[in-house]
Amino acid sequence: MAAQSEFTKSAGERVADPGRRGLLLKAATGAAGAIAAVPAMAESLADVPAREVGDPVGTVSERSKFVHLDRVTESSPGVLNVDPSLAINSKTPIDRLSGTVTPSDMHYERSHAGSPGLDPGKHRLLIHGMTKTDLVLSIDDLRAMPSVSRLHFMECSGNGWENWKNADPDRTVQETHGLLSMHEWTGVRLSRIVDLVGVDPASTWMLAEGGDAAAVARSIPLTDEILADAMIAFVQNGEPLRPAHGFPMRLLVPGMEGNLSIKWLRRLKFGDRPFMTRWETDRYTQLLPNGKARQFQLYQEVNSVITSPSGRMQIRPGYNRITGMAWSGRGTIRKVEVSTDGGRRWKLARLNAPILYKALARFELDWDWDGVPTRIVSRSTDDKGFVQPSRDEFVARMGVNALFHYNAQQTWAIGGGGEVVNVLS
Amino acid sequence: MAAQSEFTKSAGERVADPGRRGLLLKAATGAAGAIAAVPAMAESLADVPAREVGDPVGTVSERSKFVHLDRVTESSPGVLNVDPSLAINSKTPIDRLSGTVTPSDMHYERSHAGSPGLDPGKHRLLIHGMTKTDLVLSIDDLRAMPSVSRLHFMECSGNGWENWKNADPDRTVQETHGLLSMHEWTGVRLSRIVDLVGVDPASTWMLAEGGDAAAVARSIPLTDEILADAMIAFVQNGEPLRPAHGFPMRLLVPGMEGNLSIKWLRRLKFGDRPFMTRWETDRYTQLLPNGKARQFQLYQEVNSVITSPSGRMQIRPGYNRITGMAWSGRGTIRKVEVSTDGGRRWKLARLNAPILYKALARFELDWDWDGVPTRIVSRSTDDKGFVQPSRDEFVARMGVNALFHYNAQQTWAIGGGGEVVNVLS
Repeated sequence: MAAQSEFTKSAGERVADPGRRGLLLKAATGAAGAIAAVPAMAESLADVPAREVGDPVGTVSERSKFVHLDRVTESSPGVLNVDPSLAINSKTPIDRLSGTVTPSDMHYERSHAGSPGLDPGKHRLLIHGMTKTDLVLSIDDLRAMPSVSRLHFMECSGNGWENWKNADPDRTVQETHGLLSMHEWTGVRLSRIVDLVGVDPASTWMLAEGGDAAAVARSIPLTDEILADAMIAFVQNGEPLRPAHGFPMRLLVPGMEGNLSIKWLRRLKFGDRPFMTRWETDRYTQLLPNGKARQFQLYQEVNSVITSPSGRMQIRPGYNRITGMAWSGRGTIRKVEVSTDGGRRWKLARLNAPILYKALARFELDWDWDGVPTRIVSRSTDDKGFVQPSRDEFVARMGVNALFHYNAQQTWAIGGGGEVVNVLS
Repeated sequence: MAAQSEFTKSAGERVADPGRRGLLLKAATGAAGAIAAVPAMAESLADVPAREVGDPVGTVSERSKFVHLDRVTESSPGVLNVDPSLAINSKTPIDRLSGTVTPSDMHYERSHAGSPGLDPGKHRLLIHGMTKTDLVLSIDDLRAMPSVSRLHFMECSGNGWENWKNADPDRTVQETHGLLSMHEWTGVRLSRIVDLVGVDPASTWMLAEGGDAAAVARSIPLTDEILADAMIAFVQNGEPLRPAHGFPMRLLVPGMEGNLSIKWLRRLKFGDRPFMTRWETDRYTQLLPNGKARQFQLYQEVNSVITSPSGRMQIRPGYNRITGMAWSGRGTIRKVEVSTDGGRRWKLARLNAPILYKALARFELDWDWDGVPTRIVSRSTDDKGFVQPSRDEFVARMGVNALFHYNAQQTWAIGGGGEVVNVLS
């Protein structure tokens, strides 16, 4: 039991009989077991790298050279991995991330005229319209005000558009569902701004305008829910917003389509009707089966996706951990069910606690794959009773004319060799 | 109300009478008001930068060139901003961060032999000792197992040591309290590992050994609390651990001194008594007033600190937002009180929701400073009833011989000119 001996026998110390390991895994894990059948390459500490003095403590900590994370870029629906100068968006590598928080540099991005490099010393937010008085705020003004910090998902209304009309079997889940991220956002509540400028009680809409060259601008209805939830955010995961995400300030409208959360926010104007910008008369309208276009379809509906195993991954027979994320712009996820037989039978997945309001929820299910080709799929239910539709139900209701708000269940086919392939259903 | 007009009058649109702004702020905010007396430089949108196409959408999003974040380095207690090759730790810029989540590259670091660049394909974790069978796990093995994701603070037992014996008036809060961070950590629960290898019920301690050149190793008591809380983590804020934080795997023992959360974890050995490594017989013992040394003082006790205004900041008379963080390794923060008169009277601060177990809690208090020199200080209380001590109470109990587990209330003096200075109490 002398301490020294604990640190001097690494070269010689062998782990029992290597043959016992397979038995152990069977015995300890059982059917709903705990560990994959990936053989360890080393069975003794002799194989652990020699001890060497490492890299010095730095002013930032960098990623390991063994870790490869990047956002894929897209120039139009389904045209992926393009030259960044052609890209209209980039997608979060949700196939390679775990948990629920997205690293600050990996949040998805959808920009209409690139990312302006605004000088925070010069940037201002004008607040006017149906107010008692107008106001111009600097980032220093905002930072000096009481603020709140909240974990919320953000999702582009185009998330999932890859799979609406057809399913490219080569797609990864980053490519099909990567317009989805979560940060801890910090900012000043919209309701505080409303009180501060004395918004006329007759005002029912607010125009939010961005400082990008495209002048993205949206009309936001002043519902009780939006007044309770929305903030003017200036921080993502503790640090000032990055330029791609609206530096120095943006609107954040939790649970609604991402384009409402206007980046590089330069103006809020209060009025008594929607302002009917081209972003809501044209771009973000929804073409319905009957040929009419729906305006102001704002909620990101209840949704979920299995992130592992997912497109282009490879599994083996035996224990496999199924995991993914669920979310609802309507509120809080209540349950996630997973089917491993293409939707005939469903099992309740474990949900990671705490499950927060308008936040990503991580789910897991233990699965013993018998090696027979099958299909795996998840469906989520929120606290308002909304249930994620199957693709057939979704298409029956919405047709295939539109691009936005696709929240149908995502199916992954498992081939006989364990290959995981994107399919429609 | 035509949409076009909303986007064409920016050059000419003026905001009311600039003189009204001061009045507005007074009228709208009142005594517990909402906004700092920082004058806006612009009163019209004419001063907003012209619209230009911005930077392209990239595979990562970088920080703004206007944002300057770095960790300060320290070579021994109080010797700051050293050459990184001499540094034993680096501190999180909590004076410049908001909310509660620390950006992945800004988590504090305490390393005893630098940060080894381990190859995850070769690294292994040996689990042995009082077990039914031994086991060697690769990172792929771990990643295939059921996991949990949890937001927990981490704190070096040396956090605060700058102010134990005397208070350098030049210190920032990053320098006095920056050995403190919070991430969302993802990993496999320790209790699952215990079940997997069939740990003997007579085993009451576990040795955890790191793969760094210093071979940092600690004995962890197998209490119900630690078995419920601890995990073998491989993810920070959604992404694989960075090398400085233990890539590819580390132990995470929430609420306990950071050095228990062994980085580059290579070995867990189960036994029936502490292993008495030099890290617990020498380094991380606590010299008490009576000259005896306390071993295994593991909890990070209830604590709090005002991060703004804090050391080397400057405030103005009128409204000031006081904000900071509170935490307790014993459980969950219940309340934070703030005094603006050096500890005579205390007011309840607002706590940002949700307040999570063994997590940082952000607090805020509105304060109207009358311009008279004073002292501001915070104290926190947790759900077990522990109350953060004043410095006098702390020193009366612990003396000034020791280095670790300083959790006394932090006082900032406000000078007549609004300068904020680090003081003992």
